[in-house]
Amino acid sequence: MHFYNIAPVGDNLKSELEKHLNSLTKPVGSLGMLEEIAIRLGLIQQTIKPNINKKRVYVFASDHGITQENVSAYPKEVTREMVNNILMGGAAINVFGRLASAEVLVVDAGVDHDFNKDNLPDTSKLVTKKPGFGTRNFAKEPAMAEKQAIESIEFGCELAEMAAKDNVDVLVIGDMGIGNTTVAAAVCVAAGFQPDEIIDIGTVIDEETLKRKRRVILDGIKLHKPNSKNAIDILQKVGGFCIAEMTGVILKAASLRIPVVLDGFPVTSAAILANMINPNIKGFLFAGHLSKVKGHGVLLKALNLTPILKLDMRLGEGTGGVLALHVMEAATNMIREMATFESAGVSKGNEVV
Amino acid sequence: MHFYNIAPVGDNLKSELEKHLNSLTKPVGSLGMLEEIAIRLGLIQQTIKPNINKKRVYVFASDHGITQENVSAYPKEVTREMVNNILMGGAAINVFGRLASAEVLVVDAGVDHDFNKDNLPDTSKLVTKKPGFGTRNFAKEPAMAEKQAIESIEFGCELAEMAAKDNVDVLVIGDMGIGNTTVAAAVCVAAGFQPDEIIDIGTVIDEETLKRKRRVILDGIKLHKPNSKNAIDILQKVGGFCIAEMTGVILKAASLRIPVVLDGFPVTSAAILANMINPNIKGFLFAGHLSKVKGHGVLLKALNLTPILKLDMRLGEGTGGVLALHVMEAATNMIREMATFESAGVSKGNEVV
Repeated sequence: MHFYNIAPVGDNLKSELEKHLNSLTKPVGSLGMLEEIAIRLGLIQQTIKPNINKKRVYVFASDHGITQENVSAYPKEVTREMVNNILMGGAAINVFGRLASAEVLVVDAGVDHDFNKDNLPDTSKLVTKKPGFGTRNFAKEPAMAEKQAIESIEFGCELAEMAAKDNVDVLVIGDMGIGNTTVAAAVCVAAGFQPDEIIDIGTVIDEETLKRKRRVILDGIKLHKPNSKNAIDILQKVGGFCIAEMTGVILKAASLRIPVVLDGFPVTSAAILANMINPNIKGFLFAGHLSKVKGHGVLLKALNLTPILKLDMRLGEGTGGVLALHVMEAATNMIREMATFESAGVSKGNEVV
Repeated sequence: MHFYNIAPVGDNLKSELEKHLNSLTKPVGSLGMLEEIAIRLGLIQQTIKPNINKKRVYVFASDHGITQENVSAYPKEVTREMVNNILMGGAAINVFGRLASAEVLVVDAGVDHDFNKDNLPDTSKLVTKKPGFGTRNFAKEPAMAEKQAIESIEFGCELAEMAAKDNVDVLVIGDMGIGNTTVAAAVCVAAGFQPDEIIDIGTVIDEETLKRKRRVILDGIKLHKPNSKNAIDILQKVGGFCIAEMTGVILKAASLRIPVVLDGFPVTSAAILANMINPNIKGFLFAGHLSKVKGHGVLLKALNLTPILKLDMRLGEGTGGVLALHVMEAATNMIREMATFESAGVSKGNEVV
């Protein structure tokens, strides 16, 4: 793998950024998390005037063989149907993307369907990066070939490069696919997290289905014995194409110094794997929100990330990530546009800094 | 007073709103707080397609005689200087207002200065509603005359009427003025809240100043003995012009069915008084954020409001309220723009509702 050379965010501009923030017409530190966001974006972009003008959302969609074990509230066809819904602009992510002026692209990361044969009216928002037509059922066999795991990560890298080429300032990563929280939970447990902290409902399912979901995850890990320190081995045995591609996009975006906003639990499980491969990625990540899925907070804590929003959401698609962009833009606009005490002729106080 | 006839929000459209929400292409309840916001705005506007297109911020500015007791980190001139800064577009509220496409108006609710004599380049964003040039020092005498308290509330009502006339869909209420958290804390303690839960720093001050602030508040209440059940009496004795005007704007906006987004601690202290006068206002209020000022969460809890944002902010001016508008707009756009399972041809699941 070629991810050992990601430079950390670094802090060579930090004192300059702090000094500028404290010159703005507001009590010192009074914008709380916005000040932290502004500083980190400044460090990433290496400027005291950071800007996240061009915003893109990648919604990763794929199918999961594990849905054969009846772990979800919805039939697997919904993955394909929701891709169409997103392409038509009717999903939640489209509504929030429009509001945030963020471009929403759907990545076919392995849906069990060939959209090219559908004669869709508009495929300009569909990016095809297919390592296969859904993974295999990890209750019976490894989810994918090692080759596919590596190919998926490479696809993710290509998506980060595409974003860089298009001058994207910030990427939101979202996930959609029936069965995705089952796979994400399997990945996290395989990576060493405690099952009780991690395994939960995604969409609302009954007790019986949740028990089955739990058993399927634990049995799958017992069967394949993934190496808890090896992201590729975990992905191959109990992972998903989406999670693998998201792992790749996070790694490559960090190496290209593009800030990445995480959405919910499946996305953050990919960040856990990316962090396993190279912990320097952490400085480029923002936690868009804390989802209502139990394990999400545990993963964010492991990555030392504080969620920007806490709205009790559990939808996915990147919805929590894209909503957080407004706060991040407020932070960058604040540092770029606010008057200073000097420029506005406002008296300084005797604040305790 | 003429506030006894505020109709409650009511819930006659509630089941219809819930039914529509559950028909949209997302797992049931998966948008958490956004669904609650959409429902409440639908009930307020009496439609299943609520809209908060036209957004206005009133930033109430006034001076407080209590600053003579040396309770603030900044000199009192900063109130006037910050009004100028807001009129020039350089304050945090201007930056966030532009981002949210919200109009920002500064209300001179009693700054100790005559802005008309300043030959300001642009006063189109200044609304003059002056019951006086700053309140008196409540450490020595009542903060204002009863007549001024009533006049201030009436001014607030006029501002709500002006918003209705201008077809404003949602109002954000912000406050700015050196000494405002001291006055707001005095109002809350006078209204029966525990001093230890309420009295805190606003901008960062040292231990000695905080102790003085506490003593000034408690001594003022001991001196004037405001009636804890009488909002006018509290305002007159230890209140401020801003808080009185905000009390009025909240009452009148509720009677005109205009949703009001609260900002931080001083604004919420006005909501406490408005609630004392007529508790039917509560259904029209949204808590924009939870500020870092200690007592804010206590007041929100008393009003049974859940803050939309929690960003460790403590700036005021309406900044926390205006940032929350994006989430509220996302909620209304969601309910107006999302496809339904039927319209998008997405299969229904067997979710546990």
